[in-house]
Amino acid sequence: MRDYQAYLIDLDGTMYKGKSPIPEAANFIEELKKRQIPFRFVTNNSSRTPEVTVGKLKKFDIDAEVHQVMTASLATARYLKEQQNHVRAFVIGEVGLTQALENEGIEIVEDDPDYVVVGIDRNNSYRKLRDACVLVQNGAGFVATNPDIKVPTEKGLVPGNGAFIQLIENVTGKRPEVVGKPTGLMLQVALEELGVEAKDAIMVGDNYLTDIKAGINAGMDTLHVQTGVTTKDELAGYGTQPTYTVETLSEWFH
Amino acid sequence: MRDYQAYLIDLDGTMYKGKSPIPEAANFIEELKKRQIPFRFVTNNSSRTPEVTVGKLKKFDIDAEVHQVMTASLATARYLKEQQNHVRAFVIGEVGLTQALENEGIEIVEDDPDYVVVGIDRNNSYRKLRDACVLVQNGAGFVATNPDIKVPTEKGLVPGNGAFIQLIENVTGKRPEVVGKPTGLMLQVALEELGVEAKDAIMVGDNYLTDIKAGINAGMDTLHVQTGVTTKDELAGYGTQPTYTVETLSEWFH
Repeated sequence: MRDYQAYLIDLDGTMYKGKSPIPEAANFIEELKKRQIPFRFVTNNSSRTPEVTVGKLKKFDIDAEVHQVMTASLATARYLKEQQNHVRAFVIGEVGLTQALENEGIEIVEDDPDYVVVGIDRNNSYRKLRDACVLVQNGAGFVATNPDIKVPTEKGLVPGNGAFIQLIENVTGKRPEVVGKPTGLMLQVALEELGVEAKDAIMVGDNYLTDIKAGINAGMDTLHVQTGVTTKDELAGYGTQPTYTVETLSEWFH
Repeated sequence: MRDYQAYLIDLDGTMYKGKSPIPEAANFIEELKKRQIPFRFVTNNSSRTPEVTVGKLKKFDIDAEVHQVMTASLATARYLKEQQNHVRAFVIGEVGLTQALENEGIEIVEDDPDYVVVGIDRNNSYRKLRDACVLVQNGAGFVATNPDIKVPTEKGLVPGNGAFIQLIENVTGKRPEVVGKPTGLMLQVALEELGVEAKDAIMVGDNYLTDIKAGINAGMDTLHVQTGVTTKDELAGYGTQPTYTVETLSEWFH
């Protein structure tokens, strides 16, 4: 195991599992702090603000600071700001997204936007989707916080942001720029913020198809942990393997 | 040209083109009446009631009666009624669909439905789509009025019912029973109502991929008219050809 200069860390399946704690997670974070290794939590969730995520982690005895949480919404806002000086955005999304955009000085508009930005929106409507489709056809850029098609809940699978992205794609024929995992874009934004190069950092997560793929796409080493979605057996069936895989995070710092 | 016992006739592209008349259409309908040949207009539109369609046709000097309009919504209601004695349906749709279902004695419910029925709904919302996904996962049948993914408007392409059907399919992994064109189901319902067998009837329409395919799927002869979507050149590129193709409907009765 190399001495990495920064860790990017997934949440669900890695730090906790739904509403249940993963006992080894809190120690792992404490160890990073003790060794003074910078880290960021990286999450595809675009509706929650970093403040809410910090509160959620606290329930699992994990102490995080707001600036240590990188959401797909924050990364989207940073990404847009890098594209041009003043950005006008038509937005489908909740407070986690609108707040992130406003904090970066992005103007939220109904008409004539530079970009149509789409995150999960539990108040989504026919009208919003129709307007997004028309604006994308008229030439606005099309940016998606994250591509997750379905989200597990107690009641069953419910539509995730990717389901609505796919709908807009099906109607317009245009493909979005996707910021969240499994692309490497959100991870690159987090590494820029940390001032660490991809080759010197490691991505930690349980889900091969999102976390590990994103790490690989960002040019990072990757640590797969078997406490979540992808089992050790499933992992073996995938192409490019993660740099490491562990049963729990307690195996890591020894 | 054979003496067909019934005609099923598409609307847009065949009887009118958007807001413009197709001059040969009114004469074609008059000729059917003069010859006392029964006919039905068959439309994938699930939001308009037959009454509204009759009013629209009148603007183009085409006199139709309400019972001569078969919509995907009416056909869906008949189809459901044939499945079982008392049907409870969770419905995404507008008045054209809810009225058709209620007229057939189908109970519209929020919980514990036998079927999830999906037609275009300009008041569609995240909540409705989420509930539909959960109910389909819990075992409710999944029925779609029509599969049109995009609909042309003056402002551009907007999402059609098929875009939402696809979303529910992507989340649940379940495929719907589709009533509207290009399946033959709506045409079969219209023919049952007329008491005419498929082999003795002809389907008339401009769009190969919806009208002509539906006719073929229903086991009918087909008449393609070159006043709408599919040109003569495009038509030649498709597999199974229509029984006939004409430049305009004025060529037909001679």
